[in-house]
Amino acid sequence: MKTSLDELKQFLAIPSLSADPAYQADVERAAAWLSEKLSALGFSAELVPTKGHPIVYAERQVSRDAPTILIYGHYDVQPPDPLELWTTPPFEPTIRDGRIYARGASDDKGQVFAHIAAVEALGTNLRVNVKFVIEGEEEIGSPSLAPFVEANKTKLAADVVLVSDSPMFASGLPSLTYALRGLAYLEIRLEGAAHDLHSGSYGGAAPNPIHAAAHMITHLKDEEGHIQIPGFYDRVRPISDKERSLWHNLPFDPAALAASIGAETLPGEAGYGVLERLWARPTLDANGIWGGYQGEGSKTVIPAQAGFKLSMRLVPDQDPREIEVLTENYLRQIVPQGYRIRVLRHHNGLPAVTPLDSPAVQLAAKALEEAWGKPAAFIREGGSIPIVSVFQETLGAQVILMGLGLSDDNLHAPNEKLDLLNFEKGIAASRAFLKLLEQLY
Amino acid sequence: MKTSLDELKQFLAIPSLSADPAYQADVERAAAWLSEKLSALGFSAELVPTKGHPIVYAERQVSRDAPTILIYGHYDVQPPDPLELWTTPPFEPTIRDGRIYARGASDDKGQVFAHIAAVEALGTNLRVNVKFVIEGEEEIGSPSLAPFVEANKTKLAADVVLVSDSPMFASGLPSLTYALRGLAYLEIRLEGAAHDLHSGSYGGAAPNPIHAAAHMITHLKDEEGHIQIPGFYDRVRPISDKERSLWHNLPFDPAALAASIGAETLPGEAGYGVLERLWARPTLDANGIWGGYQGEGSKTVIPAQAGFKLSMRLVPDQDPREIEVLTENYLRQIVPQGYRIRVLRHHNGLPAVTPLDSPAVQLAAKALEEAWGKPAAFIREGGSIPIVSVFQETLGAQVILMGLGLSDDNLHAPNEKLDLLNFEKGIAASRAFLKLLEQLY
Repeated sequence: MKTSLDELKQFLAIPSLSADPAYQADVERAAAWLSEKLSALGFSAELVPTKGHPIVYAERQVSRDAPTILIYGHYDVQPPDPLELWTTPPFEPTIRDGRIYARGASDDKGQVFAHIAAVEALGTNLRVNVKFVIEGEEEIGSPSLAPFVEANKTKLAADVVLVSDSPMFASGLPSLTYALRGLAYLEIRLEGAAHDLHSGSYGGAAPNPIHAAAHMITHLKDEEGHIQIPGFYDRVRPISDKERSLWHNLPFDPAALAASIGAETLPGEAGYGVLERLWARPTLDANGIWGGYQGEGSKTVIPAQAGFKLSMRLVPDQDPREIEVLTENYLRQIVPQGYRIRVLRHHNGLPAVTPLDSPAVQLAAKALEEAWGKPAAFIREGGSIPIVSVFQETLGAQVILMGLGLSDDNLHAPNEKLDLLNFEKGIAASRAFLKLLEQLY
Repeated sequence: MKTSLDELKQFLAIPSLSADPAYQADVERAAAWLSEKLSALGFSAELVPTKGHPIVYAERQVSRDAPTILIYGHYDVQPPDPLELWTTPPFEPTIRDGRIYARGASDDKGQVFAHIAAVEALGTNLRVNVKFVIEGEEEIGSPSLAPFVEANKTKLAADVVLVSDSPMFASGLPSLTYALRGLAYLEIRLEGAAHDLHSGSYGGAAPNPIHAAAHMITHLKDEEGHIQIPGFYDRVRPISDKERSLWHNLPFDPAALAASIGAETLPGEAGYGVLERLWARPTLDANGIWGGYQGEGSKTVIPAQAGFKLSMRLVPDQDPREIEVLTENYLRQIVPQGYRIRVLRHHNGLPAVTPLDSPAVQLAAKALEEAWGKPAAFIREGGSIPIVSVFQETLGAQVILMGLGLSDDNLHAPNEKLDLLNFEKGIAASRAFLKLLEQLY
């Protein structure tokens, strides 16, 4: 690991800030550094040009018949500001108290490099085909990744996609994320009168689209948090007893979660635990609302228009396109009489799940257990990670998220770090996984 | 009337734009013009300096024992832009088709001058004390008027206050406005978590103050439009059969009102006609709402905060201060668990009514009937006119609004006009009223 750590330090020392054009050369230097490193390990590596920063693509083909794993990560980093809050400079990687401090240590250079080190450690013992896709635009929204994947379906074909760009559930608890929620996102625009009205002259006879919006939002869920859209839950895969029991044993304290976000309660759908609601139940939230006067003091207006943004987190096997239709139908049904309504559809995304009993999940769990000497936690993630959908939808691969970071790694903040234990165990788990994958067929 | 019209033209030719400092000298010229005119009619007139534009105060004391009427109006005007839409220049008063076109013709110089012309016509036959308060800041919110009235209670003491700064109910229908609604205006701020949350990571367990706001707004009124605040209606004076019958006979077409504001329906409290709801029933409207993401497209946020503005139009004998307390209590009762709530009180105003059978209303109605040869309509106004509250609350006078304008007079718009018939009948009605007022005691 000594050598790996020295090399990681070299990688971390390159200020590959994707957001700031002043660092263009450094971003390219980081890509070249990866390409050279992977070439030295016997990979055929290339820098794929994009409209923005290059994608590092590398593959080492062992055999046409062997299983193929695609490992995704990113080499770009967030800006390090505010600099004065860093104990040691962000691009002078420093080890203190068993941790390596640098911008990108956890997000995502350290996690990416753990897999490279695993491949290096295996040397000629590597018996599976490995492909790396390491992009340089993750911190600016990955604009080039989906087009690249879609344009290179055959080249990128893989049985398993491994993503390491997330935290473990808790310190010392090896974690495997096997499902993500999907998304449907709508916008509702309401109009009553054709122009704003004076609340004195018209109050008592004027349609008020703020009230219409409130009425609609209130009727989207009942008092117990159950979504009222007909058919909404029809395709929701129930939480299995096995999952419920696995999650029940996780070190999770709802009160600590509430305290961490400064909330007095954690409201949600009746009949489900907090983790169940966060991971395996669909949700509905207004994400924005507007209408009338929002400034200081008072204005006696009855606005002509109001609107709100509405999103639903979806779970397997809900289909966002179907949910959009069901939702729009219901919205048009509950809009009070006398309001013109427009429903816009913004982006959507499929929920993703790699079944707990699938070989990829089982092998990854076994690898984590070998590395850490304790069973892995099976967790889900409440959000939608666009790159995961891209890989799953385009390549049809089983996608697994093996987070090596921790939630206190200070991502996007000063003093970003990675625990050396996690780096070491990450290499070991990756190495074990690559070996175990030989059994995939 | 020929002379009056010539003089009105002189008055209208002065571009007394209160909002634009470039017209400062013109504003002062208009005030001086009024002061000289009233002095010439035997009034002791003065220009009362304020922080802004002077108030013209003039009085003609006939006898200590005679009734006293205070006539309010304003000599400032709105800016005339867009100039290119005027058929004839805004400050070159022009008569076409029985109307005088000029900025200020209806709002409010023409109405003010009708009363001056009435006083002039009466000459030494005037048997009541007359006081004029003509301000130069109405179009910029009357910042100096209330302090002036409050500082001069004794000087301004009057039995009746007459305001002519409004339209008649319909063309050819002399109208008397005898009641206004009051107002209570609150702002509600809600907080769930301490900071905005990602809807993927926290959706299913995060408090969402937009939903809390929607819940509260929805629970402020029932599906039939009845306000749910306990005690809210307790002091509402019922609509008398006489009023209901008077309004029923007015030339009012709800469909035309709906069409004029581009609304499909005129929603409101069940069990009351549209005019009843606009004039004599209290209302509740959210005047603004905000929370979360309001920009283009989508942002997957669960906001920490949301809020709304809430106002209620009040009717006699509701007390805005009591309503504020009842409303705040109810809001705190219906706020869902887990949200921090702040309730701010913005401005409020008492409802005002001069009883239909009061001498002032009866005499004004008789005066209108004499002038127009047909009975006056008794109407209310749904809004709160701050100057009326100022006079009513500070002087304790019976306030009557005798509008001489029409709703198509193009107030605040190009080609403002006043029908010469209305000017003529206005003078006649004012003259008749001043004579009839002798009977007040």
